[in-house]
Amino acid sequence: MPSNKKLHVDKKHHTQINKPAVSRKENSVGLVGTQYFSFAEPPEVLQLQSGLKLGPVTLAYETYGSLNADKSNAVLVCHALSGDAHAAGVHKDDGEAGWWNELIGPGKALDTDIYFILCSNVIGGCKGSTGPSSINPETGKPYALDFPLITIADMVEAERHLVDSFGIEKLLCVIGGSMGGMQVLQWASAYPDRLLAAIPIATALKHSPQQIALNEVIRQSIMADPAWRKGFYYEYGQPEKGLAVARMIGHITFMSDQSMEEKFSRKLKNDNLSFQFTDDFEVEGYLRYRGYNFVKRFDANSYLYITKALDYFDLSGDLFMPQTKKTNIRFLVISFKSDWLYPSYQSQEIVRLLKRKHAYTTYFDLTSTYGHDAFLIEIDDETRLIRNFLANINQ
Amino acid sequence: MPSNKKLHVDKKHHTQINKPAVSRKENSVGLVGTQYFSFAEPPEVLQLQSGLKLGPVTLAYETYGSLNADKSNAVLVCHALSGDAHAAGVHKDDGEAGWWNELIGPGKALDTDIYFILCSNVIGGCKGSTGPSSINPETGKPYALDFPLITIADMVEAERHLVDSFGIEKLLCVIGGSMGGMQVLQWASAYPDRLLAAIPIATALKHSPQQIALNEVIRQSIMADPAWRKGFYYEYGQPEKGLAVARMIGHITFMSDQSMEEKFSRKLKNDNLSFQFTDDFEVEGYLRYRGYNFVKRFDANSYLYITKALDYFDLSGDLFMPQTKKTNIRFLVISFKSDWLYPSYQSQEIVRLLKRKHAYTTYFDLTSTYGHDAFLIEIDDETRLIRNFLANINQ
Repeated sequence: MPSNKKLHVDKKHHTQINKPAVSRKENSVGLVGTQYFSFAEPPEVLQLQSGLKLGPVTLAYETYGSLNADKSNAVLVCHALSGDAHAAGVHKDDGEAGWWNELIGPGKALDTDIYFILCSNVIGGCKGSTGPSSINPETGKPYALDFPLITIADMVEAERHLVDSFGIEKLLCVIGGSMGGMQVLQWASAYPDRLLAAIPIATALKHSPQQIALNEVIRQSIMADPAWRKGFYYEYGQPEKGLAVARMIGHITFMSDQSMEEKFSRKLKNDNLSFQFTDDFEVEGYLRYRGYNFVKRFDANSYLYITKALDYFDLSGDLFMPQTKKTNIRFLVISFKSDWLYPSYQSQEIVRLLKRKHAYTTYFDLTSTYGHDAFLIEIDDETRLIRNFLANINQ
Repeated sequence: MPSNKKLHVDKKHHTQINKPAVSRKENSVGLVGTQYFSFAEPPEVLQLQSGLKLGPVTLAYETYGSLNADKSNAVLVCHALSGDAHAAGVHKDDGEAGWWNELIGPGKALDTDIYFILCSNVIGGCKGSTGPSSINPETGKPYALDFPLITIADMVEAERHLVDSFGIEKLLCVIGGSMGGMQVLQWASAYPDRLLAAIPIATALKHSPQQIALNEVIRQSIMADPAWRKGFYYEYGQPEKGLAVARMIGHITFMSDQSMEEKFSRKLKNDNLSFQFTDDFEVEGYLRYRGYNFVKRFDANSYLYITKALDYFDLSGDLFMPQTKKTNIRFLVISFKSDWLYPSYQSQEIVRLLKRKHAYTTYFDLTSTYGHDAFLIEIDDETRLIRNFLANINQ
């Protein structure tokens, strides 16, 4: 397992690789670049929930807007399973728009004229933050399965170091959907004095056995691929087929029965059924494309580690805000009626727990046909709710 | 592709391997054995929906009860994806109970004191009927992917030959759940004069894109396994890992969120989380067990062929009973509220089409937490409905 011996790394620092440049798109934060923050450098370590230690740790992150003088306008955005730090603007390296670009920018829900937005890639990930594909300083090779299992609490602990590094004592808000929403709940539970508001979207206090089962099949699919090589595949290439199948399972769970019907129905790729084992239906071609495209951009081991973190997460009952009888954090909880991966009843469980903590809580179960993907798509509804909610916090 | 040259097979015959023996269990049909029926022997062929031909064709089947003198008491039972001909009683070879044993027997819903029950393994399957693992008479080796794609209509056509061989002109009823229900609908549509009653359970007129997507991931999982060898694996052994993962996906879809919660919740296999990539949760261990157990009893290629048949099936709109403006077939349609693989709305679509054909139709959307598996589990409700329904038909 990783230790901190023989480490030689740069000192704790922020590397501003590229400042937001002139906007290429109206209401966009414009060109952005990845920044890096390192901590837990010897003799320090990041103490993990497993009891193991990790260090040094690097977080890839982006910021949008300006931190005000009293550092009271910071909003932390937390990403979902396969997300990354690039939440808004246009990335200078590849021209890609951020995954919540419609929600973050001048005049948008997370208004960069008002707020300072911070988003980092989670540890365990593969988008610049320390994860299984990072170099293990002990061996000079990627950690692979020598990387310790990490939890949502560990992710949040790393984010807390990043927030500290900015000198931000109290976040105005922590917001995120899906796994991002779990981080929001973890922030509120572990650091109730470090945030004023929290917006968990399309998320849960814990994974149900169905959610665990879906993740387990994803993991089994990756691990069934001989190219996975028990995790030590980095010098040979990804377990492409296993990872692609894993992602196909994911994609089915992100959409709803209805959104699939609206998008694909039973449309054929060609005029007739092939009577061969080819992708006859458009939905089959879509799944294959999404599956094999994912292989190019995401590390198979990170998929294993992050799904395990999701399954381990449990803030139900007395595990939520254990030290807090009454909280002043204001909550906006959002779910989507057609989301069957994180069904609305799971958000309603969050709301019930928040009432036990006497939290000021607003809950919306939004009508949408987009399933779990809705948190990335239903921007108009989210904008209306989030803008009004934050305006009250900001007073 | 298969042809009928160089075939040397037994003549069309029924081989009664073992007659039902003394009951080993109260209300059981007792010991039963597999019987075999062969047809489409040269120069005859089974004309497939693809335009290709198949022959000879063998069907494995079982019967329970006695065919009456005027051959008016025959009920055809159709099985689901991984089912087989062994629907009732105790199999003499392995002591296994039939998959619908609780529903078929003396005094049961399908009362063997009254009805003659017939159940055959579908073509494309691997439980005794001709499928991809059968010997291709052209090569002397298993067909593997030289087996032609078959459809639900082809399965029913084969069943029709079996029914003909008994001299049964009119079936009292055709009944089945899931894929079995599709065969029921296909029987009514293709042979409206050959049955008095039809009971499609937990089924659909066509697969939605979500259902196609789930099957496509199942197929991709099998085909991603290098041990699949493009289907020609029979001399090397099954693509075990790919097939196991495929079946795990299936098992998640057979259960409901609620039934998984009731059965597993977040129960751990051991006292604590392992912080390793082992099966921490009982639901993970269950899935692994069911996945790898399936490998021992089901052929991977049959899984490919049958899922494709399911996806191709479409009797929606004008495709249902195209020659029939008004039918005298009586229908009992059953769905289960927690079934998300074949949701109730799909059964309601069947009911709407039946009304257009002026069919006498009874529909029940049963309350059950068991998801799609309910059609195998909710025996009391099914018994009550089916017994009363058939009593009226039998008059």
